[in-house]
Amino acid sequence: MAEADRLKSVLRGTTLHDASRRENSAEHSWHVALHALVLAEHAARPVDAGRVVTMLLLHDLVEIDAGDNPIHGVSDPAKQEAEEKAAADRIFALLPPDQSRHLRALWDEFEAAETDDAIFAKSIDRVQPVLSNLATGGGSWPEYRVTRDQLETRVGAKVSRGAPAIWDGIKARIDAWFAGRGA
Amino acid sequence: MAEADRLKSVLRGTTLHDASRRENSAEHSWHVALHALVLAEHAARPVDAGRVVTMLLLHDLVEIDAGDNPIHGVSDPAKQEAEEKAAADRIFALLPPDQSRHLRALWDEFEAAETDDAIFAKSIDRVQPVLSNLATGGGSWPEYRVTRDQLETRVGAKVSRGAPAIWDGIKARIDAWFAGRGA
Repeated sequence: MAEADRLKSVLRGTTLHDASRRENSAEHSWHVALHALVLAEHAARPVDAGRVVTMLLLHDLVEIDAGDNPIHGVSDPAKQEAEEKAAADRIFALLPPDQSRHLRALWDEFEAAETDDAIFAKSIDRVQPVLSNLATGGGSWPEYRVTRDQLETRVGAKVSRGAPAIWDGIKARIDAWFAGRGA
Repeated sequence: MAEADRLKSVLRGTTLHDASRRENSAEHSWHVALHALVLAEHAARPVDAGRVVTMLLLHDLVEIDAGDNPIHGVSDPAKQEAEEKAAADRIFALLPPDQSRHLRALWDEFEAAETDDAIFAKSIDRVQPVLSNLATGGGSWPEYRVTRDQLETRVGAKVSRGAPAIWDGIKARIDAWFAGRGA
């Protein structure tokens, strides 16, 4: 638990809704867990909200070692994956063996994004920063020169897979934002 | 979910473990939820960890309106309770009626601290700041002039009620801290 405290100092690309500062990965994890609780009924297929919440509470712990890689930034996916796996090896091993195995298995399930619970959890993890960006007039999108197509490919496709109704609800707001920029 | 974002700007009395800054109530909520997941096996009586985690994700939302009242600070309990109830009325009403009723009921259950799940959730909410204070050489205890007796009454009694084994584990570290100050 002391080690987990360090996630509060890992900063993300997005800001708070009032744009006062960048968000950290610990408060992001809380916020996505809350989203999952409230939005679980909109999952593409029935999910176990408790398992989804647990996955989301854990999903970014690896960033204590591997850092946050903004989705619209430039990164090397193979290098990032290797760093995150090494981080998971170290961090989950801090727990007693039975808990380490159980929680590591949930993290692996989240990363693999193959089960209904993991697919929905991944959707929610993508939804929350979009809402932050919309709340702050585009947020980090201009900084990362994000195009409408890129949002559809990197975010929309993943949100739609687990929560199509949520992406439908957000799309109109995204279109309005891009229309407002003449893009 | 946008309203919930504001909890990231409510600052608590305790700091991060590296003492770099004060902790906010959103990241605190994430951290206590994680504590509950890992420590549920040490509850005084069997608990539903999923319900406990949900309570802890929600428990501080009222601070968006009512602010944080440090446990060792001076506050008026009746005034605080009234402010928090008014905050719960406003904030939970932002949700659709069925979710509003369900999540408000969980918050009321947490506040009442009568069920096994709520009693354990309250214990965990008290444990996390003690561990922060121990990690930072006493943290906010000197600032609030906390005595060993006060810690036992305001914190120990509540932690022991829901998780006696956890309090037993922490007590030796607290005693060592006070011994080191000649108190």
